[in-house]
Amino acid sequence: MKIFDYQTRVRYAETDQMHVSYYANYFVWFEAARTEYFRAIGLVYADFEKQGLFLPVAEAHCRYLGPSCYDDALVVRTVVSQMRQRSLRFEYQIFKNLPQVANPFEGAKPIAAGYTVHVFSDANLKPARIPDALRSKVELASLDMSQSVRRSNFR
Amino acid sequence: MKIFDYQTRVRYAETDQMHVSYYANYFVWFEAARTEYFRAIGLVYADFEKQGLFLPVAEAHCRYLGPSCYDDALVVRTVVSQMRQRSLRFEYQIFKNLPQVANPFEGAKPIAAGYTVHVFSDANLKPARIPDALRSKVELASLDMSQSVRRSNFR
Amino acid sequence: MKIFDYQTRVRYAETDQMHVSYYANYFVWFEAARTEYFRAIGLVYADFEKQGLFLPVAEAHCRYLGPSCYDDALVVRTVVSQMRQRSLRFEYQIFKNLPQVANPFEGAKPIAAGYTVHVFSDANLKPARIPDALRSKVELASLDMSQSVRRSNFR
Amino acid sequence: MKIFDYQTRVRYAETDQMHVSYYANYFVWFEAARTEYFRAIGLVYADFEKQGLFLPVAEAHCRYLGPSCYDDALVVRTVVSQMRQRSLRFEYQIFKNLPQVANPFEGAKPIAAGYTVHVFSDANLKPARIPDALRSKVELASLDMSQSVRRSNFR
Repeated sequence: MKIFDYQTRVRYAETDQMHVSYYANYFVWFEAARTEYFRAIGLVYADFEKQGLFLPVAEAHCRYLGPSCYDDALVVRTVVSQMRQRSLRFEYQIFKNLPQVANPFEGAKPIAAGYTVHVFSDANLKPARIPDALRSKVELASLDMSQSVRRSNFR
Repeated sequence: MKIFDYQTRVRYAETDQMHVSYYANYFVWFEAARTEYFRAIGLVYADFEKQGLFLPVAEAHCRYLGPSCYDDALVVRTVVSQMRQRSLRFEYQIFKNLPQVANPFEGAKPIAAGYTVHVFSDANLKPARIPDALRSKVELASLDMSQSVRRSNFR
Repeated sequence: MKIFDYQTRVRYAETDQMHVSYYANYFVWFEAARTEYFRAIGLVYADFEKQGLFLPVAEAHCRYLGPSCYDDALVVRTVVSQMRQRSLRFEYQIFKNLPQVANPFEGAKPIAAGYTVHVFSDANLKPARIPDALRSKVELASLDMSQSVRRSNFR
Repeated sequence: MKIFDYQTRVRYAETDQMHVSYYANYFVWFEAARTEYFRAIGLVYADFEKQGLFLPVAEAHCRYLGPSCYDDALVVRTVVSQMRQRSLRFEYQIFKNLPQVANPFEGAKPIAAGYTVHVFSDANLKPARIPDALRSKVELASLDMSQSVRRSNFR
C-alpha cells in the first residue's frame, strides 16, 4: 500500500468564527491519518509506544488552498515520502466532498497540502532506530505537490 | 515596536500522552501571539473583522527543537518579517522558562521556530488590500532562524 | 430510531499527560454524536444553520466513570430524552472497545455518561421554535443512567 | 485566600462558526483556573504529579448563561466548595469584559457557571488521600450560584 486515504468530517468544534476550519486542526487530521495509515499496513502505533518507541514531530508544514467548513467530508491522502535511519516524512493532501464516482480524485483539487517529519525516539525522546517491522512494511510514495505551490485561488 | 513577546503557560489540555505539548497547539500559541502583537501596535484584530476584513492563514510551518511541558512558562517572540500588497508573513520563536535576568534571551535557545503567511481577505475570503492603519504601524523585523535549521538536539 | 450509536476513535490530540483522554473532549464527542444523530433521522444540522436556526448549548454535564485512552474505539450512545417548545435535551453514554458480538452492550459498563440541553435560537441567539421537520422525526428515549450515579470505581 | 480570579482572553481557536466560544472550551478555562488557584495558595499542581499524585475529573458541569466571543477578556472566579477524604469540588463563575472600577463584580452577571469534582489518585488512578499540604491551605468558599439557575436570558 503506497497511498492511504483517511476519511473524517469537520466537527463543529473544529470551526472558528471565520466559518471555516481553524488552521491548527489540519495538523490534528494529519495525525489521525498517520494512525490509520499505520493500521492499514498492519501496525498499531499505540503498540510502539507500549514498547517504548515514540514518534514525535520534528517539523510540520501546511499550505491552505481553499476553505473547509463544518460537516464537510474530508479525505486526507497520506503517504510516507522518505524514510531514513531514524526519521520518517509524511506527505498529505486534503480533499473535501469528493463525488461518489469511480475515480473521485480525477480533476479534484486539494484544499490543503502539507508534510510532517518525525524522528523515532525512545521514552526519553532520544533518537532511536526505526523498527524493522515498520521499515519492511512502508512503501515510499509521493504526492503531486506542484498544484499546491501555485498561487492559491482562495487565500 | 519590531519584536513582540507573548507570554503564556502550557495548559493541561495542551499536553498529550507523550508528556509534552501536542504539536498542533504551537499554532494556537502563534495565533494568540498575533492577536497581542496587533494590540501592542495599537490595533485590535477583532475590529478588522467587524469591518469585514479577515486574515486567514495561507501557509503555516513549525520546527520543533525541544519539548515543552505542562505549566511551562512560554514566550513567543513574534515579528512581521514581510508585508506585500495583500499578504503578511509572521515569524515566531518559542522559548520556555526563561530566567528572571536583565536579558533573558541571551544564550537562550528556542524550543520551536515557525512562520505563518496570511492574505488579507474580505468577508467572502477574496483577497483585499492591507488597511493603511495596519501598514503604517508595522515595522518589519526578522528573527535569527539559523539555529532552528540545525539538527535538533531533541527530536 | 430512538437510539443512535456514534463511533469514533480517541486521537492523540485528545489525550493528556495523564495518559487518558482530556475531560473536555468528551463534550466534543457528544457534539459529533449529535450531528450524526440528526443525519441518522434524515436531517442535516448544517442546513438548519443555513436557514438561520441554531442550537447553542444551555447546559452540559458529564460523569467520568472510567478512563479512555489513545486509539480506543468509542461508541457514544445518543438519545433525545426531552423536547419542549424551544429546547432539546440529549443524553449520552460512552463505551469503549466493545466486543464484536451480537449484543455488545450486554453487560458493558459505560466509561462516561452525560447530557446537554439546547435552546433553538435564531441568528441573534434569541429563542426560536423547534422546526416541525425536527419535531416530527425525533423519538424520545432515555438511557439507564442509574449505573452512572454509583460511586465510580475509577476516579 | 478563598476566591481566586483567573484571567484569560478568548482565542480565535476557541471560537466556532456560531461566532461564540465553543462550549467545551469553558472546561479548558476551568482547568487553567485550577492550576492558577493552586499556585495562588502556594502549591504547584505539576509537582503533585511528579510525586505520583493526580487529580482526574470525576464530574463536570457548566451552565451557559450568555455568549463569550473572540478576544473577550474573561475572569474565571474559582473556589473550592467542598473537600472530603479523597475528593475536591471546585465551583466557577465566568465573567466577561468587566469594567475597570473598584468593585467590578458588583452587579455583574456571569456568562457561565459550573463545577468540577476531582478524586485524588495515585499513578494507577486509584483513589488516594489528599496531601496535608493541600488540605491545610485550602479555604472553603462558595459562589452564589442562584442566578445561574434562573432561566438564561440568552440560550
